[in-house]
Amino acid sequence: MSGNTPISFARGAPGPELIPSEELADCAHEVGLRDGTRVFSYGPGSGYAPLREWVAERHGVDVARVVLTIGGLNGFVLYAAELLERRPGRVLVEAPCYDRSLKILARAGAEIVPLAMDEQGLDPDALRAELGRTPEPPSFLYTIPTFQNPSGRTLSAERRRAVAEIAEAHGLPVLEDDPYGLVRFEGEAPPTLHELAGGELVTYTSSFSKTVAPGVRTGYFVLPAAEAAAFEERATSTYITPPYLPQAIVHEFVRRGRFEPNLEHVRGELRARRDAMLGALEAYFSDGASWSRPDGGYFVWLDLPDGSDVPAIAARAAEDGVAIVNGEDFFPRASGLGKASARLAYSYEPPERIAEGVRRLAAALP
Amino acid sequence: MSGNTPISFARGAPGPELIPSEELADCAHEVGLRDGTRVFSYGPGSGYAPLREWVAERHGVDVARVVLTIGGLNGFVLYAAELLERRPGRVLVEAPCYDRSLKILARAGAEIVPLAMDEQGLDPDALRAELGRTPEPPSFLYTIPTFQNPSGRTLSAERRRAVAEIAEAHGLPVLEDDPYGLVRFEGEAPPTLHELAGGELVTYTSSFSKTVAPGVRTGYFVLPAAEAAAFEERATSTYITPPYLPQAIVHEFVRRGRFEPNLEHVRGELRARRDAMLGALEAYFSDGASWSRPDGGYFVWLDLPDGSDVPAIAARAAEDGVAIVNGEDFFPRASGLGKASARLAYSYEPPERIAEGVRRLAAALP
Repeated sequence: MSGNTPISFARGAPGPELIPSEELADCAHEVGLRDGTRVFSYGPGSGYAPLREWVAERHGVDVARVVLTIGGLNGFVLYAAELLERRPGRVLVEAPCYDRSLKILARAGAEIVPLAMDEQGLDPDALRAELGRTPEPPSFLYTIPTFQNPSGRTLSAERRRAVAEIAEAHGLPVLEDDPYGLVRFEGEAPPTLHELAGGELVTYTSSFSKTVAPGVRTGYFVLPAAEAAAFEERATSTYITPPYLPQAIVHEFVRRGRFEPNLEHVRGELRARRDAMLGALEAYFSDGASWSRPDGGYFVWLDLPDGSDVPAIAARAAEDGVAIVNGEDFFPRASGLGKASARLAYSYEPPERIAEGVRRLAAALP
Repeated sequence: MSGNTPISFARGAPGPELIPSEELADCAHEVGLRDGTRVFSYGPGSGYAPLREWVAERHGVDVARVVLTIGGLNGFVLYAAELLERRPGRVLVEAPCYDRSLKILARAGAEIVPLAMDEQGLDPDALRAELGRTPEPPSFLYTIPTFQNPSGRTLSAERRRAVAEIAEAHGLPVLEDDPYGLVRFEGEAPPTLHELAGGELVTYTSSFSKTVAPGVRTGYFVLPAAEAAAFEERATSTYITPPYLPQAIVHEFVRRGRFEPNLEHVRGELRARRDAMLGALEAYFSDGASWSRPDGGYFVWLDLPDGSDVPAIAARAAEDGVAIVNGEDFFPRASGLGKASARLAYSYEPPERIAEGVRRLAAALP
């Protein structure tokens, strides 16, 4: 290896150049001085009120339906616990599915049911078939329809309508996890499931990790009106009050008009990184490999020919200073799936290192 | 009522005058500029490394045994889940016990066993008797030995030795929750259970909510060496990374030498508040009432004569602009205990309002 810092395609995180640290520090100072009594005290578990209101306005919902969480994942823990308490049993997920969510579901005692997906996202027929398999209704469906983690795939507009219709026909609660939707650098955004299903069954969640900074640990949930109070109560029972200062920083960043310009900057950087990755894959991975071509987000999903041993390839790549995540991490344990696949994040490294990393990864092939 | 803001003996929180907001805002600015890349990114679930190291040094333990949490309560959620997964069943608590912890234990499926306590704290004989009742070992003992929430009571030095011995004899895991120990304004601190039992069975937890500000949401756990990794893994699985900025603010506050002087200020204020409350109780609650006389912390526990209906008194007091918490909230539901008691927090209101509040509370007696 070239002796330097390893090249990471493993970190699903923005590189440090994508984080406006100095301005965030300045925002912290300003809100701390202006609103310090609130920011450094206990308060409602639903989060820092001005940011909560901004989110509500942006989504056109009553503020009572919005709860800010300590990042998106911790909100997922609360949501899964709430839904599984209400209706224990099956949770339907995409195959592949975000690994941290899988782990949380397993810990919460869910029976995890992976549903097939392809380049157009979750397959509505697979969803229909699973719902018809047994009359017992599942607890909920968990999906990342846009620039999915780990696959980078986006559910097509047509399939979104199909999934929304199926959910309505079966009274199926859906958690639409959308942390990447705003970091789209190409194409037009399809409607969200939340928009299509009217928000009665679909809970929408996103975060500011990809649009501002992951370290602000600020996610949010837009809940069905009937469920918001229970979710908020669970948040309060779990941590009393989330840390307000990071939420207040996000609000101050927005108030200064920095949200959209920063987003434009992030989109431009991510596009350059994606281009570097797709270009290098094209150059070095000709034989039998295929990969997703996302219009946004952080991830490319790489499928090697059947029978490939990605864990072994990853181990060799690591020796040459390149880190990837094995595809099998994104399927339920012992399913045996994903062994010929890998998740490649292009979010963390600058373009020239991405090209070099893909070159080394190809060199690790058998 | 006098038409102004209600007087709150309900909030177990420091009044705004006790929170050094301006300096915390300045600390936020400085650490954001100095360490922004780390502070606004993902990182270890164990917390902001410099603060973690400071805590480890202060407690004389290896840094691997320290995990910073998002406030003490969220750490309690993680600890309880971990211990109950390892050994489901009974959790031994003090009667009365912190209400939020009770609720978390109930939600986690624990069988809650309240143990008798008196002015000297938890009764070791009650602990011994419960351990002898059945051969099945409990999951853990949860205790706040110093300035307990809600009773304000402190476990005597002699009883601490007894409890530590019993725990060792039975291999009983103990969670020693000590958020109030440092806000002592009188008397000498007895050794902690953690010090007495050598930290093999006793997990020690505290937070910066009472010594810096609750809004920093920074708690910490000092874990037995064998258990720290599992606890940290659970934290990481739950929220990836805690918000570092608030933890970094605490570290900067400490680094500037502001921790001890601020603590002295807080102690002086709390002493004046406690004095105001004890003086007013003496003046207005002569007949058959008794109360704890804490040397620190936030709370006085008021016992009215047997048969008193504190919920009814609290409702009348609320109409006259005084809020208290009913004693029954601090016992397991349906135990029927605590109806003649109340928790009075003196932490939130300045002395003159405390005196006036106690006067009104007395006027609400039947």
